[in-house]
Amino acid sequence: MKIEKIEPMDIERESFRIITEELKDRAIDPEQAPIVKRVIHTSADFDYADTLYFSENAVKLALDALRSGALIVTDTQMALAGINKRAASKLGCETVCFMADEDVAKRARDEGVTRARVSMDKAKERGDNVIFAIGNAPTALIRLREHIDAGYRPKLIIGVPVGFVNVVASKELIIESGVPCIVARGRKGGSNIAACIMNALLYMLDETRGAAK
Amino acid sequence: MKIEKIEPMDIERESFRIITEELKDRAIDPEQAPIVKRVIHTSADFDYADTLYFSENAVKLALDALRSGALIVTDTQMALAGINKRAASKLGCETVCFMADEDVAKRARDEGVTRARVSMDKAKERGDNVIFAIGNAPTALIRLREHIDAGYRPKLIIGVPVGFVNVVASKELIIESGVPCIVARGRKGGSNIAACIMNALLYMLDETRGAAK
Repeated sequence: MKIEKIEPMDIERESFRIITEELKDRAIDPEQAPIVKRVIHTSADFDYADTLYFSENAVKLALDALRSGALIVTDTQMALAGINKRAASKLGCETVCFMADEDVAKRARDEGVTRARVSMDKAKERGDNVIFAIGNAPTALIRLREHIDAGYRPKLIIGVPVGFVNVVASKELIIESGVPCIVARGRKGGSNIAACIMNALLYMLDETRGAAK
Repeated sequence: MKIEKIEPMDIERESFRIITEELKDRAIDPEQAPIVKRVIHTSADFDYADTLYFSENAVKLALDALRSGALIVTDTQMALAGINKRAASKLGCETVCFMADEDVAKRARDEGVTRARVSMDKAKERGDNVIFAIGNAPTALIRLREHIDAGYRPKLIIGVPVGFVNVVASKELIIESGVPCIVARGRKGGSNIAACIMNALLYMLDETRGAAK
């Protein structure tokens, strides 16, 4: 097996070319394609071409929120680490994760609930101009749905936890919530996928980036 | 679809029970099983039961290195964020990523190579008692193989980059290198998988953790 000679700058472009080629018989909404392809780029898993669900106008609404400097909230330090902070801060978007906060840990212990659940409560205090990038905890999505049922209206929920317990059902709760969302149906997802979807959205607004699409 | 009531503490145990059940007809080496299962736990992707390659005694050699306080080097901030630093530091293992270092960025620019490649050079200066957790950059693996061919002998290489360009071939270079390794053959992998394999190894040595296996 041979190593191809390729310039660092060209690796991403060539990867997207291969992905586009392998997807070629699939009908993918052009607005959604940069996200679907970037998720496949991050996972090498073409299942996402089938499982990624976009609520109506999700991409447009997400871009509007980013342009207005929405707060980006993750449920893991890993997702936080994976989001391109330079691209976010150019738009005036702050990126935060409350999972390691002492007050969150304490309340979770006291109440016997997950820190992810308490993190969502803390995020909600920051208002409605929030995009959630949830790649790990079904309990985060379950809590968000409770808040939505009580009137909360965040700008977008990226709902892509991975796993085996309450993962599939928690994602459906978000799809049925009426709030704009991008969800990976089924068991698959992860913090890397959450960060990747967030970055795909950010790159759509970053003119300095020869955005691979 | 219903949300199951389950205590936060029990979610991981129940997830591993489901994974074990779904794997039940597969023969998995008992020493490797905690790693294979944790990778499936992180990805919900049973393909890894087929694609994870372990060199002879890789797990035993990795645990020996961790007990001796090996340096853990990643090729992304995301993998670094995903590694359980508390478990690592209990063993005296430092965890580092050189990708954002200014000297690395400068050399990469000057030489027209990837920062991942330069990071590997920087890690090598720290000696042989190193475990590499590489979840992103084929160029990191290619560079490590060059160093190995010149006599470098790190303790373990976790070789799980994801992607479409040189990914498959770079992993085979590591498998054929003769250095202890755990590799996800094929296109799949990722920073989350690198961190997850590292954590599975750390948890094998963490007696305070009722390690889900």
